[in-house]
Amino acid sequence: MITGKNQIGFNQSAQGSKTYHTINPKTNATNPTTFHEATQSEIDTACAKAKDAFTSYSKTTGTERAKFLRTIASEIEALGESLIQMYTTESALPEGRANGERGRTLGQLRMFADLVENDDWRNPTKTGENNGLRKALIPIGPIAVFGASNFPLAFSTAGGDTASALASGCPVIVKSHPMHSGTGEMIATAITKAAQSCDIPDGVFSNLNSSGIEVGEQLVKHPAIKAVGFTGSHKGGRALFNLAAKRDSPIPVFAEMGSINPVIITTKAIKKRGAELAETYAGSITMGAGQFCTNPGLILTVVSDETTAFVQDLADKTAALDAQCMLGPNIVKTYVKNTQEMQSQEGLKIVATTQNASGDNMAQAQIATVSGKHFLKNSTLQQEVFGPFSLVVQSQDTDELLKIIHTLEGQLTATLIAEDEELNELQEITTGLQEKVGRIIFNGVPTGVAVEDAMTHGGPYPASTDSRFTAVGNHSILRWVRPFSFQDFPEALLPEYLK
Amino acid sequence: MITGKNQIGFNQSAQGSKTYHTINPKTNATNPTTFHEATQSEIDTACAKAKDAFTSYSKTTGTERAKFLRTIASEIEALGESLIQMYTTESALPEGRANGERGRTLGQLRMFADLVENDDWRNPTKTGENNGLRKALIPIGPIAVFGASNFPLAFSTAGGDTASALASGCPVIVKSHPMHSGTGEMIATAITKAAQSCDIPDGVFSNLNSSGIEVGEQLVKHPAIKAVGFTGSHKGGRALFNLAAKRDSPIPVFAEMGSINPVIITTKAIKKRGAELAETYAGSITMGAGQFCTNPGLILTVVSDETTAFVQDLADKTAALDAQCMLGPNIVKTYVKNTQEMQSQEGLKIVATTQNASGDNMAQAQIATVSGKHFLKNSTLQQEVFGPFSLVVQSQDTDELLKIIHTLEGQLTATLIAEDEELNELQEITTGLQEKVGRIIFNGVPTGVAVEDAMTHGGPYPASTDSRFTAVGNHSILRWVRPFSFQDFPEALLPEYLK
Repeated sequence: MITGKNQIGFNQSAQGSKTYHTINPKTNATNPTTFHEATQSEIDTACAKAKDAFTSYSKTTGTERAKFLRTIASEIEALGESLIQMYTTESALPEGRANGERGRTLGQLRMFADLVENDDWRNPTKTGENNGLRKALIPIGPIAVFGASNFPLAFSTAGGDTASALASGCPVIVKSHPMHSGTGEMIATAITKAAQSCDIPDGVFSNLNSSGIEVGEQLVKHPAIKAVGFTGSHKGGRALFNLAAKRDSPIPVFAEMGSINPVIITTKAIKKRGAELAETYAGSITMGAGQFCTNPGLILTVVSDETTAFVQDLADKTAALDAQCMLGPNIVKTYVKNTQEMQSQEGLKIVATTQNASGDNMAQAQIATVSGKHFLKNSTLQQEVFGPFSLVVQSQDTDELLKIIHTLEGQLTATLIAEDEELNELQEITTGLQEKVGRIIFNGVPTGVAVEDAMTHGGPYPASTDSRFTAVGNHSILRWVRPFSFQDFPEALLPEYLK
Repeated sequence: MITGKNQIGFNQSAQGSKTYHTINPKTNATNPTTFHEATQSEIDTACAKAKDAFTSYSKTTGTERAKFLRTIASEIEALGESLIQMYTTESALPEGRANGERGRTLGQLRMFADLVENDDWRNPTKTGENNGLRKALIPIGPIAVFGASNFPLAFSTAGGDTASALASGCPVIVKSHPMHSGTGEMIATAITKAAQSCDIPDGVFSNLNSSGIEVGEQLVKHPAIKAVGFTGSHKGGRALFNLAAKRDSPIPVFAEMGSINPVIITTKAIKKRGAELAETYAGSITMGAGQFCTNPGLILTVVSDETTAFVQDLADKTAALDAQCMLGPNIVKTYVKNTQEMQSQEGLKIVATTQNASGDNMAQAQIATVSGKHFLKNSTLQQEVFGPFSLVVQSQDTDELLKIIHTLEGQLTATLIAEDEELNELQEITTGLQEKVGRIIFNGVPTGVAVEDAMTHGGPYPASTDSRFTAVGNHSILRWVRPFSFQDFPEALLPEYLK
């Protein structure tokens, strides 16, 4: 069923001699399919097709695109258990997670179908006398989408970036993630089937295999590509951003690059419900082996006897949890390297490490502590450690805590754990956090990103490359559209939604 | 009244030894005020003040900001004739234009006051159970604004960029344009008076003098600056875009960089109303000495006897017009250099040149022609010549015309001059143009940008650095804001507009 070929519009293609395999992280066994990395000529063909297809696809009705998106969802559902099996084989993520993520992916596709079924999302605006000025949002052109290692479905081939771009009328070329190219191919086949059965033009969707960075680089540099969607590391996102900015004709890159998601826990909250918080946070830190961009990597406290006891409790509860399999050997290697780098920082102490477990690619969760003073003078302590790691900063007082908040880099989220009666004293902290993040949570955990209109998944750099957009929810379509005005235009030449 | 000092928040400052003067383009006489270019320390102070002020200014109510904007308008009005005199002395633009531009500037300030008086512009969104998720647009941080040489008021110190940024809750630091720093200082003083009388925090507005590129570069590189608004040349806009992209923490740059604004005139339209069109376009090409970013620099026709006669008529009517004074010696020098470069291109013929006139900085308007074949193989012919210059391309047929449209770079506008009965045949041309521009006009002229909600002033690169935004109209506020979500937040800590 899986061919290892690139999907170039309606054609499958395997011209290249550079091949690779995905592996099963649980066993490090090589999965059977040989994937053919896309050649320059295949990249060019996909881009030329996308450019040609854009002219007609950008003019399709909302009803046509809604049908296409719903058919993609049905075709993905029709893949049934074989998709779940491929997903778990390539990611080592549990079946429950695979099912949940598939549900989220289908939900997103149908959400965007509902959105574009009528043209309100275009914000049609009419001003001026007679025909005067008529404005609406129109698609920007072909989009290159880079899937995430940690979300083989919801943030990959048919994930939020692809769904929102296709909904807006933009063709999509996916650079398949080398760690789950089999899952990617299955989804690409479903999208292609849907396109064919819905009379969507050849070239509106392509899926290119790639084992390294070259295919992605060529895509971002290609003149036909008009914007980029990326979910992944800061290093990867920034590299693509730099490439896009250096083009003769620069293009926008929306890269969601994760963050350390600071959690402020007040001493009062610790006194009142320390044990419960320790349990909740041991769970949030280690959930999915910590492989979430909203993983709480930084816990900010003020020193007290209760805080010390809480940290011990959090450490004990984390250490008692089972080690988990990560997404692959490179992810584990980087995690170990990053935790070792942390350990060598002045003043940092590891207070919890889960037991190692037999099996490949297992990650030991770690809790570390550091004083506010050390944290303030060492920006390395702000670097994200992708995995089940969290650093507890013990400030000497609220002033130092505030200083720390003011030195934080941009973040996807911040969380405030406090008692209601403290709210008045917390205004300055809330304001300080607001300037740094895209979403602030009260008495909860940052993990879990609801697909809702009121969600912001993004934030000031380096959480994302452009804080003016969200990667999740209906408003994420705004990344791929631009305003366009008709002036004194005859009714007959106006699109339906401006008549 | 004019001091030549920098306005740094509420203080005037002239620490630097680097000074300059503006000149009167009509006479090349040096105007009396000695302007002190901002020093690095003054830039740093302005940025530090803006950063501090942001925390409280971002939390002001819409009513407070509306009052501030309206007071700025009143203070500018109170400057009376002295402002008009300064404007005409520094720009050589006629008094009627000065009055018109002042009216536009006041109108924009009041339009944004009306917009933010209630919080609908924030698009407040609530989803989820209980307090769930609540999202709204919030200001992004201090904005650096670069004024335009050709709009000393409406696109400069208190122009659209400043008005929209202040309306959103962002502090503004203006890099004063060296050609009209006196006009800039008068406006800066009006804004400062308004800030003081409206209890707006010190640092929400600063105005920095600059004779070259250094002050602007330092501003764009400063960590406190969170976005940039620019109106001017491609060279200048791209340089700032590159600087912003190279920052440790990149920031968005909205640069509106002009374009050649292609005008397609059909042979039928020429047959029907050639004489009228020649007169209209001779006027549009030379209006304001062609110093508009929407100046029609490219006229696309299909060869015929009627077209040849029309071009001759357009040439005669243009040649008969008076030469006009441009904005300054550097502008004229560049104009002459660019027209000379055009003249040396293969196949290009100059068919009209207005008589030279006595006086300094006078520009002779020029009409040139070239064949479609020559245009297609020479991208230099697509370069903007800022001034009263227009190139008429004579295609051999509609296919060649379409090919030309497909090779065009991004543009602010395109104009279609045609008869109603041709509309059906023009679908392909309209579609082709739509992919290249931000606004398309039917049977009109591109010059004249109405300040209306349905206006798009922007377009695909190189017309602007980000086609997803407009520089004119209420929606231009979207350049300076980002979505922000509160999750499970207690009512007491939510801003009023999310309660």
